[in-house]
Amino acid sequence: MAVPQSVLDSLKQLLGDRLSTSASVREQHGRDEFWHHQAEPDAVVFPLTTEEVVGVVDICRDGAVPLIPFGTGTSVEGHVQAVHGGVSVDVTGMDSILAVNPLDFDCIVQAGVRRKQLNEHIRDTGLFFPVDPGADASLGGMTATRASGTNAVRYGTMKDNVLAVKVVLPDGRVIDTARRAKKTAAGLDLTHLYIGSEGILGVITEVTLKLHGIPEVTSAAVVPFPSVEAAVDSVVTAIQSGIPIARCELMDAVMMGAVNAYSGFDYPVEPTLFMEFDGTKRGVEEQIEMMRAIAEDQGGGEFQWTSDQEERNRLWQARHDSAYAAKALREGCELWGTDVCVPLSRLTECMTETRKDLESCSLPAPMLGHVGDGNFHLIFVLDTSNDAEIKEAEEYNERMIMRALAMDGTCTGEHGIGLGKKDFLVAELGPAVDVMRQLKLALDPTNFMNPGKMIEIEGGVRAGEVT
Amino acid sequence: MAVPQSVLDSLKQLLGDRLSTSASVREQHGRDEFWHHQAEPDAVVFPLTTEEVVGVVDICRDGAVPLIPFGTGTSVEGHVQAVHGGVSVDVTGMDSILAVNPLDFDCIVQAGVRRKQLNEHIRDTGLFFPVDPGADASLGGMTATRASGTNAVRYGTMKDNVLAVKVVLPDGRVIDTARRAKKTAAGLDLTHLYIGSEGILGVITEVTLKLHGIPEVTSAAVVPFPSVEAAVDSVVTAIQSGIPIARCELMDAVMMGAVNAYSGFDYPVEPTLFMEFDGTKRGVEEQIEMMRAIAEDQGGGEFQWTSDQEERNRLWQARHDSAYAAKALREGCELWGTDVCVPLSRLTECMTETRKDLESCSLPAPMLGHVGDGNFHLIFVLDTSNDAEIKEAEEYNERMIMRALAMDGTCTGEHGIGLGKKDFLVAELGPAVDVMRQLKLALDPTNFMNPGKMIEIEGGVRAGEVT
Repeated sequence: MAVPQSVLDSLKQLLGDRLSTSASVREQHGRDEFWHHQAEPDAVVFPLTTEEVVGVVDICRDGAVPLIPFGTGTSVEGHVQAVHGGVSVDVTGMDSILAVNPLDFDCIVQAGVRRKQLNEHIRDTGLFFPVDPGADASLGGMTATRASGTNAVRYGTMKDNVLAVKVVLPDGRVIDTARRAKKTAAGLDLTHLYIGSEGILGVITEVTLKLHGIPEVTSAAVVPFPSVEAAVDSVVTAIQSGIPIARCELMDAVMMGAVNAYSGFDYPVEPTLFMEFDGTKRGVEEQIEMMRAIAEDQGGGEFQWTSDQEERNRLWQARHDSAYAAKALREGCELWGTDVCVPLSRLTECMTETRKDLESCSLPAPMLGHVGDGNFHLIFVLDTSNDAEIKEAEEYNERMIMRALAMDGTCTGEHGIGLGKKDFLVAELGPAVDVMRQLKLALDPTNFMNPGKMIEIEGGVRAGEVT
Repeated sequence: MAVPQSVLDSLKQLLGDRLSTSASVREQHGRDEFWHHQAEPDAVVFPLTTEEVVGVVDICRDGAVPLIPFGTGTSVEGHVQAVHGGVSVDVTGMDSILAVNPLDFDCIVQAGVRRKQLNEHIRDTGLFFPVDPGADASLGGMTATRASGTNAVRYGTMKDNVLAVKVVLPDGRVIDTARRAKKTAAGLDLTHLYIGSEGILGVITEVTLKLHGIPEVTSAAVVPFPSVEAAVDSVVTAIQSGIPIARCELMDAVMMGAVNAYSGFDYPVEPTLFMEFDGTKRGVEEQIEMMRAIAEDQGGGEFQWTSDQEERNRLWQARHDSAYAAKALREGCELWGTDVCVPLSRLTECMTETRKDLESCSLPAPMLGHVGDGNFHLIFVLDTSNDAEIKEAEEYNERMIMRALAMDGTCTGEHGIGLGKKDFLVAELGPAVDVMRQLKLALDPTNFMNPGKMIEIEGGVRAGEVT
């Protein structure tokens, strides 16, 4: 045990049975959703209140022990790995919805509330929370990773849907970053400093979120295209025409082949757009007609669409199955996903060049994209016990990222930096990363908050090294 | 002259004639748009490039001289006043539009480009930049003050429309906070740290902005209501019904009386909504019909509306004249404006109680609001040579702000903190202000960047005190 016994004793005194050092609990808290090297914490705690989180923060800081905030473990860049040991702070027990204000289109939740739980809770209000990263993630974790997903093109990311956060700072102070007003010009924007802070600046314990009206009608549409270019150009044209597409996913031919094989579909093995439109009945019909015409102009194939909930689910099934389908491409293998985002005008070029590069790759590597945002994912299916495969994936990933950066894009549109992209963050933003480091050290001078993530810091706390 | 001669000599060597110490130039740089105590800089410089700004920053920092970034001087909370003397850095000469990317819906501008200049420049692309604070402000200044305005309810504020900034840091480093991708999860959000930073963290020299498609049709509508409550409730209902109102301004009865007197209108002297709707022809008609029905339900009076550009201007004239009309209420007096923003559900209560409180105020004090956001303004018309009047206005202002804070609102929806609201920022966010101070001092340890604004800092640079 690298965490000093005195720290464990203090945590035990604070939380009783809600401290665990069992192998299975530690194992579960040592990895996130895509493959990275497992790195287990020495202990896991389960606080229920902001005050308990303050206690944990104080104990870890004073004991010089790393502290890693943990939601549902569905991040994807190794955000929760305890790379220097320490204590994982699992907030999933903090799952109270504290307030719902339908007239104000907002709500306040504890950090461990999951997005599906929230949407079920508020369904009768006619409102919903739109950000959907796929996983049923915690809203605290989604805030900390600036989560995004399939309908960001219409509703934005967490950056656009968080009004305020309550945070326990590294020194144990508790702050609220803003009031519940929809608009404010009051001081430095600490809310956005914490959205996407990946646990390195404190522990988010409450989040105030914007809500949106459930649209009168939602329609889904699926259409194959002769090329990635034709599909992306259709989307660009649609956005330029002001069609407020709600969701817009592109799966490439490799991905379509995988879902056909996995789910027994017989989709054309061609780049395929999965779309959703919402609004009033008349408005959605108008959008669908405009989109159908645009797709036809680009040589799109059969345009299937429906407003029926069950039929919509069927149409989107292939998209929902994509991760399983990718995994099924090679038995016993794991997924390692990566993403970039480029200006829309460069998306075709970036996706096409990446696919061309991948022709020489020995690993299955389907691509899919939130193309309305210029954001796409590449998923390697690899044998993680084989270093050569990991190295090969890393090389293709690096080339894709450098290609995106050369196009004025970013090394990650929505996955974050975590462990996986620290060097690429420096390649992307250079001296701005030094500013991030200054801010981090101003608030966490001993670097005990999720050390080893996002920004490299010389020295810093490692469990067992400083007591 | 409080700025050391050696500093002036260095600036002169760097910028030649683009350094001014003339009384008229200093006077012009010692005030912003609403009344605050005049505080003139000792010198004004006019850099043309980021490199020149670096030179100015280095000279001021090394000379321990305050540096105040200056755009068009149309801020309203004393943001540009040189309260400790020093050098005003006027970026209006940095007025190049560096890139327009119609396919990506974005552009890059130097900080001194004004919003009307940008919109004229890009008109042929079918795109426009929506944020409209009233004044023809510089986009760098609008970024630094997190500007907002009449159509924020539809298009958001600067917070939602800035993709990246180039900043000269207090230590002379230059950073770009993000790439041009529409979405990113790459590291701490420095872009939002600088949006609304009021010049205390560095000088913004370039801004990457989102653009939006010019709507097919824009319609304006004006309708009076028997009460503030009826007007606000109409707006809340409209927003809940999903009507995407583009602009939505409420002028109270006092304000309507003022514009009638000033412009010779014969509007009912009642709370009146000025609205704009945009979208497709069919969509706008649908919105107007829904809005008309909602207004009728709330006892609204004659519902005037039009899609004709000239008629629209006529309908909105009263709103555009409001500042002049307020000023005309008392000859020789000045305007002192203040704003708060509350959750929409509390807006009626906050406006009504404020109006009731003002019944005992000896100063004319019309109110108008961006009611779709819960944001409203109170404008005192006062004799600034009369301390009793200033004190009276301050007292009513303080009560309005404390009322808004008690309703979970903010002390400023869009005006910012500047000189005028430093104490209220502390009342609003408490310990979070200490965090802002830590971040400020991490980046500007000698506090020479716009000292005296937003956050009180002990000591700090004052021109002439440290050499």
